[in-house]
Amino acid sequence: MAINLADKHQTTLDTAVRALHERTFFAHYPENPTPEVYGENADKEGREKYTSRLNNKFEELLQENPESWTGQEDSPYEQQPLGVKYPFFSPETLISRSEEAFHQWRKVKPADRAAILVESLERMKTRFFEIAYATMHTTGQAYMMSFQASGPHAADRALEAIASGYEEMTRFPESTEWEKPMGKYNLKLNKSWKAVPKGVALVIGCSTFPTWNTVPGMYASLVTGNPVIVKPHPKAVLPIAIVVAEVQKVLAENGLNPNICQLAVDAEDRLITKELAENPKVKLIDYTGGTEFGNYIESLKGKTVFTEKAGVNSIILDSVDDLDKVAQNLAFSVSLYSGQMCTAPQNFFIPEKGIKVGGETVPYEEVVQKLADAVTGLVNNPKAGPHILGAIQNPATTERVKGASTIGGNAVLTTCDFSNPMFANARTCSPVIYEVDASNKESYSRELFGPIMLIIKTKDTDQSIELASDMAREHGAISCGAYTTDPAVKEKIMDEMSLAGTPVSFNLTGGIFVNQNASFSDFHVTGGNPAGNASFTNPEFVIKRFTWVGFREPVVG
Amino acid sequence: MAINLADKHQTTLDTAVRALHERTFFAHYPENPTPEVYGENADKEGREKYTSRLNNKFEELLQENPESWTGQEDSPYEQQPLGVKYPFFSPETLISRSEEAFHQWRKVKPADRAAILVESLERMKTRFFEIAYATMHTTGQAYMMSFQASGPHAADRALEAIASGYEEMTRFPESTEWEKPMGKYNLKLNKSWKAVPKGVALVIGCSTFPTWNTVPGMYASLVTGNPVIVKPHPKAVLPIAIVVAEVQKVLAENGLNPNICQLAVDAEDRLITKELAENPKVKLIDYTGGTEFGNYIESLKGKTVFTEKAGVNSIILDSVDDLDKVAQNLAFSVSLYSGQMCTAPQNFFIPEKGIKVGGETVPYEEVVQKLADAVTGLVNNPKAGPHILGAIQNPATTERVKGASTIGGNAVLTTCDFSNPMFANARTCSPVIYEVDASNKESYSRELFGPIMLIIKTKDTDQSIELASDMAREHGAISCGAYTTDPAVKEKIMDEMSLAGTPVSFNLTGGIFVNQNASFSDFHVTGGNPAGNASFTNPEFVIKRFTWVGFREPVVG
Repeated sequence: MAINLADKHQTTLDTAVRALHERTFFAHYPENPTPEVYGENADKEGREKYTSRLNNKFEELLQENPESWTGQEDSPYEQQPLGVKYPFFSPETLISRSEEAFHQWRKVKPADRAAILVESLERMKTRFFEIAYATMHTTGQAYMMSFQASGPHAADRALEAIASGYEEMTRFPESTEWEKPMGKYNLKLNKSWKAVPKGVALVIGCSTFPTWNTVPGMYASLVTGNPVIVKPHPKAVLPIAIVVAEVQKVLAENGLNPNICQLAVDAEDRLITKELAENPKVKLIDYTGGTEFGNYIESLKGKTVFTEKAGVNSIILDSVDDLDKVAQNLAFSVSLYSGQMCTAPQNFFIPEKGIKVGGETVPYEEVVQKLADAVTGLVNNPKAGPHILGAIQNPATTERVKGASTIGGNAVLTTCDFSNPMFANARTCSPVIYEVDASNKESYSRELFGPIMLIIKTKDTDQSIELASDMAREHGAISCGAYTTDPAVKEKIMDEMSLAGTPVSFNLTGGIFVNQNASFSDFHVTGGNPAGNASFTNPEFVIKRFTWVGFREPVVG
Repeated sequence: MAINLADKHQTTLDTAVRALHERTFFAHYPENPTPEVYGENADKEGREKYTSRLNNKFEELLQENPESWTGQEDSPYEQQPLGVKYPFFSPETLISRSEEAFHQWRKVKPADRAAILVESLERMKTRFFEIAYATMHTTGQAYMMSFQASGPHAADRALEAIASGYEEMTRFPESTEWEKPMGKYNLKLNKSWKAVPKGVALVIGCSTFPTWNTVPGMYASLVTGNPVIVKPHPKAVLPIAIVVAEVQKVLAENGLNPNICQLAVDAEDRLITKELAENPKVKLIDYTGGTEFGNYIESLKGKTVFTEKAGVNSIILDSVDDLDKVAQNLAFSVSLYSGQMCTAPQNFFIPEKGIKVGGETVPYEEVVQKLADAVTGLVNNPKAGPHILGAIQNPATTERVKGASTIGGNAVLTTCDFSNPMFANARTCSPVIYEVDASNKESYSRELFGPIMLIIKTKDTDQSIELASDMAREHGAISCGAYTTDPAVKEKIMDEMSLAGTPVSFNLTGGIFVNQNASFSDFHVTGGNPAGNASFTNPEFVIKRFTWVGFREPVVG
């Protein structure tokens, strides 16, 4: 390598591997967009860079001879096209270039691959603000989330995948001498092992978290020696295009083929995801998005597939110390990015007899009203609302929220009109609340993507647990929040939800929310229910990307 | 636990985990059936115990209320029924008992589960000789292989699975305090994680290696907290029935439900494998056997499946030091257990211009003749032949060998008649050899189970490598032997076969054979080609059997 990147980044790698196993707080990339960390002009320069890209070709990629230029992004804040054009390549071109690059990349040692990839994250760090504005204007996330989720949090998830892959690939010896006592003599063999990458990898991105949900699979495949084709959602390309461009530059600087990591943008009249996914040369697929397409991806034969699809996330309310604090916390969770998160809660299970608050029973109706008031209070707080809700990525989400009355049940909060003082044209939508009965299972047994809160009146907490667990088992779940001061109830929730492969956050109030998962500590998605078959980042997420193959030969002499 | 098994076996477990990562020679169970290790009367007593079982009910299992008694085993050495009858249970009974046992077993800590399972192997050790005779008279293996493969080697593979599962389940902390600096204050969460087992596991055995191929999946599922239903091949029940009985006794002694590990024998008029496999409550399946049924198992939805199917194993002959030694080694490999091993070589690729022997070229025809002579020599050696060939498990194998002339090509060795001086009625068959041209791909692109050796005349070693690699990629391979004195050729073979997910043994002569894989050092099957999707024992083999689920809650005060 041009510079000795392995030396440069060994400490980062070792620290990251240790963090994976300690699972205490660890972040390599600071989440605070403060000038003290990122420099006085970083924000301004990032915004300018973003603005300068509008209505221009994105020419940073090192992929040669595009067949055409394409781009379909719109800003949810401006409701007008970004006008950025990306090079288009046919699936055949992408795959043949990937195959060619494979035979170079697979021969690079795991430690060197890991170092090259960490270096690319360091370059990405210098562009966090530009990525943040690109994220705002493709996903509709508010500024802070755009910065954190697409910048430092994504980079830490990528580092996590690199660290995990590096650890797994170096977990068995490269070679050893095997000596078996046979009585009169010893049998001696020289043995060696290779962690053999599976081949061309495809990573299919989603429209709401274009880097955060893409980089784990992308870096996991890369570190394990597989060339990657990154296929972003056509409505959210720019943030990940910047990351791919940085990876390509680091590859080229180190004498490697930049096609080891390619960007594959759909042409306006030609969607290429299925063609790529079905190509027999594609061996690995990472997918984030809707359930229907995810099930199709999982059904493809001869591929190793990692999915994150949709889930129905529950809140179980049993007993609390301070109901106001709980209501505020939950109002934030449903409002954050207008519920456009795979971890956002949807189904709130409340016993018909109410819940215990500091020993006293608060009736069901009062609990519901507290929740509705907390949502209204948050939405109408000009210092909070716009910064939490952001904008709506897809017009279909607004339609879904507006049409939520068709779910049936009682309307508790139906006004979703909300305007953003900073962006007059923003597509916005605040949470609506409907109340349904536990018996009306159909109404709450699918994901209603967006700020839709369903309150489900149950007989008691046991029924709440049973329903939350059934939902997770049958329809998937990525998060669960539970409020109880009773250790026996807590134990029961842990047991039932663990069998449904769903992590549980207990009694969250204050500045930590059920939607948030910390790199190096919280596994994101368990793989244990229909919400997805993969987990950021457990060992399975990397080891399925390569095969251990052994060689042996008698020791001569 | 009644006795403190965790203390008793901790050293064994720790040593086994270390051995997995050192991959030097390690065996916990001695493979030599010598009185010094196993006691003066062990062999005699084992034989007597075996004999006493014939024409009797097998009443050692702790599974209550059988619906009927069933048994279909025949001895390949005697060609008459064993007459052992096993309890029959319907799939519904087996699965509902398994579900019930699950909720007890999953709550036992991984270290305690591991200790209980190691204890069961120690009990199995006391019955190695009985298992050996049971294996001889169900599979047709010769005595030495029956002892080693079904006894110590199987127990070591089981210990390997226990060690790997124990390691993976204890690889992340049970709990930790997570503290995130937020500037003015710190966010503090108590976090904990559970490795949650997936549920009822089914292990489907094969007729040729009833314990060796069953215990890895069985112990891997058990150690990770899943209850197991062991479904043996109806023709090879007794060896694994003894193992299951020992597991059940240790479970019961420790106050646990013996149904944590059940034996499921087919009734004569009712095969139950598909009914078990398709039951939605069955979450994990381990399968060893033919490709067609294996593909069906792999196609089942909603299951995590581990398979070992069939492969087409190659020998590549390029250049050698001593052709006689090579021919003897290969003759042994094709003759061992009459080729009824998944690791037995079938396709021998030899360049039409011959091979280099110590610098001189030996013509193709002479190489073929040497191989044929070595096979004939071995078969006709009364001190070797019967002890290596054993008997034929399935009459269909004999038919296949006898009908091998229909493959096409030149007959080199067609006499497969062979009689065993110790068992006059034994079903036997020695290797046949046919010569086919490289262009006649169809003739050598499927597994011909049994002692069938195909010699494929190639243009040169490059074509040999290409064809061996194609075969592995398209039809699967579990082993590959290669003979070359040229480092560049060796490098090329390693590279090509590694991409085809096939381990390679180079230049084996003397007392080590391509068919043999050592526990704790050689991964058995890579999972990287159609011969199977699982590997004994890489981390993937155990981690897919459970899910990591996390819990968190603010630190109070």
